Amino acid sequence: MKPVYLDNNATTRVAPEVLSAMLPFLSEQYGNPSSMHSFGGAVGGHLREARARVARGLSCDPSEIIFTSCGTESDNAAIRSALESQPEKRHIVTTRVEHPAVLSLCQHLETKGYEVTSLGVDEEGRLDLEELEKSLRKDTAIVSVMYANNETGVVFPLPEIAGIVKSRGVLLHTDAVQAVGKLPIDLSKLPVDFLALSGHKLHAPKGVGVLYVRKGTPFRPFLVGGHQEHGRRAGTENTASIVALGRAVELATERIGEENTRVRAQRDRLERGLLEAVPDSRINGGGAERLPNTLSIAFKYVEGEAILLLMDRFGICASSGSACTSGSLEPSHVLRAMGVPFTFAHGSIRFSLSRYTTDADVDLVLKELPPIIARLRQLSPFSGKEGEAAAFCSTHSH
Amino acid sequence: MKPVYLDNNATTRVAPEVLSAMLPFLSEQYGNPSSMHSFGGAVGGHLREARARVARGLSCDPSEIIFTSCGTESDNAAIRSALESQPEKRHIVTTRVEHPAVLSLCQHLETKGYEVTSLGVDEEGRLDLEELEKSLRKDTAIVSVMYANNETGVVFPLPEIAGIVKSRGVLLHTDAVQAVGKLPIDLSKLPVDFLALSGHKLHAPKGVGVLYVRKGTPFRPFLVGGHQEHGRRAGTENTASIVALGRAVELATERIGEENTRVRAQRDRLERGLLEAVPDSRINGGGAERLPNTLSIAFKYVEGEAILLLMDRFGICASSGSACTSGSLEPSHVLRAMGVPFTFAHGSIRFSLSRYTTDADVDLVLKELPPIIARLRQLSPFSGKEGEAAAFCSTHSH
Repeated sequence: MKPVYLDNNATTRVAPEVLSAMLPFLSEQYGNPSSMHSFGGAVGGHLREARARVARGLSCDPSEIIFTSCGTESDNAAIRSALESQPEKRHIVTTRVEHPAVLSLCQHLETKGYEVTSLGVDEEGRLDLEELEKSLRKDTAIVSVMYANNETGVVFPLPEIAGIVKSRGVLLHTDAVQAVGKLPIDLSKLPVDFLALSGHKLHAPKGVGVLYVRKGTPFRPFLVGGHQEHGRRAGTENTASIVALGRAVELATERIGEENTRVRAQRDRLERGLLEAVPDSRINGGGAERLPNTLSIAFKYVEGEAILLLMDRFGICASSGSACTSGSLEPSHVLRAMGVPFTFAHGSIRFSLSRYTTDADVDLVLKELPPIIARLRQLSPFSGKEGEAAAFCSTHSH
Repeated sequence: MKPVYLDNNATTRVAPEVLSAMLPFLSEQYGNPSSMHSFGGAVGGHLREARARVARGLSCDPSEIIFTSCGTESDNAAIRSALESQPEKRHIVTTRVEHPAVLSLCQHLETKGYEVTSLGVDEEGRLDLEELEKSLRKDTAIVSVMYANNETGVVFPLPEIAGIVKSRGVLLHTDAVQAVGKLPIDLSKLPVDFLALSGHKLHAPKGVGVLYVRKGTPFRPFLVGGHQEHGRRAGTENTASIVALGRAVELATERIGEENTRVRAQRDRLERGLLEAVPDSRINGGGAERLPNTLSIAFKYVEGEAILLLMDRFGICASSGSACTSGSLEPSHVLRAMGVPFTFAHGSIRFSLSRYTTDADVDLVLKELPPIIARLRQLSPFSGKEGEAAAFCSTHSH
């Protein structure tokens, strides 16, 4: 069964153009770019081109691009660098809705004696910029806020945030893993110090990412060893995936306007159709600015995991909004931070579209999902009983 | 021009069988193994199989395998974990001939207040095990010694080293990046706590590695974030490259005996032929146990970089033994640690063979290299003048 893949915020298909670009580096062009011989040196030229392509896509200088192994590494490297370059500053500001790559790291750093301020969000997932401003202190080493939320698609106002944070002379990192390729990013105008992106969220392969570090921002390497990436990230360059990422950023930059118009229309049709067909449903973050491809929709009195399993029979791939790992009955930290009522949060589903989403994919969900919800509500002992959670959740992890 | 690729300790060609194994995960099977839906879940099954393959190749349990992005990450993760899990221990033992992934990290850690003992080697590149034993202290957090040297191929006696280190209750890490695939490794008999390997040294792609962590050894994650790799290495799994690495380890395990016999014979023929044809030449580490594929040969009074450039015209790919980076005139730290005389160290070339090396490759080097050395010696103002270094070195980096 061909999947109806609506889980592109989890990972994306490698674009055929991207695969073509990388394949030579998995076969004939296997040299090490650090080698003296011309066989390795030739690969170095392709790395430089990939770096230039990423830089053009972000409107920055190629020297500001460090290739990493993933978004998580980029996030870890940015925050750890800020702490290491400013050992006297022991305070970090972040938000309650960050990705685990930032959130778990900050929790870990708290056990090491750092102080972390986690900013809350309103019921639409929006930050309070006054609260952000008040949180900044003389000993704040770094502010780390995501560009767009992976679960709800809510976009933070990075230009305003940067204005506040940089006027106070504090380093600013943004986890832009969900934003790059979906929103135009212009680093010549957006004064962040660090920006993390991940290849596999924009049709490049898994296992490659970028950390942007603004010229002049102090930087301490996270991976220490050889002299790769101008001494800023040790380890033999992942040449094939770096070339792939260069091509993927180039493609996304060329097509972002046209694709987002189409994807947004599909997302909006899916959203309207589901809201009309399913009573007691609501959009998480619907009142905020959102990514064009993301729809987080909550169905009252049903269990997200059960919806996913039933959709799976039709080949529909999506994600649940509840963080059901390790047997927890808690809904996701993002929906909790937004104060989404328990009965809705548990029935939250994230659909995330891409350039490969078809109108037929949307049609299929509109046809199959409303009866699934109706059936689950009929079966559910919780329907109508507020405050109870479905035991179903504890048997699955994701 | 088809390269005569004799630089396999720098990086290797991806085996065609490995490329075939990974390609589905760069095209149709692009799901995220952490996803709830069966499309992602199917990929998770292939990850488990890859983990089992690597474990079989090393004779360990799959739960002891953590997939990383490279050998450098594995080395960094092992050493940092040992320090974090034993904060009261501030002493590290390593050797003067380690790869930069260990050496540079230890130098960095010295600036953070850790004390590092760097064991020397004799003129053949061998460790003094008594010196190792004497170096161990109550506050030694970890001993990190490589399995086989990347420049000379010299193999350290890991079973004896492990006997000494583990009898003192100290954690032991081995950078086995050059050993895995070239020497049989049996972790059921070799009691190291950590072992690092890198995919691209054994015909898997660049950008994937493994950190083996023995069951019961305390471990603190290096990359903090999501729950991947059982909470030990955050970041979406690099599925294609992990599957590739599983297949590469499987191939290497199946073929190691036969291939090493063939490769060793080729290496020995190259070695004998060059020693016979070129006066004033010697083998670095020739008196020690060495990897079957590696030949580090030193030609007196010539400059390694010049040899490489002239060999490059014939498509011969090899490495220089001098660390010519950043304009330094110093020979490599490995050859210095071995006390190789300056006039030899500067003219050191590393040939490293693989399963794809042909007899014709060896023939070509035997034909073309001796006249290159003779010509360079005729041209060289340094021939016959001890203690001088060629200025040529400062204009290239590698």
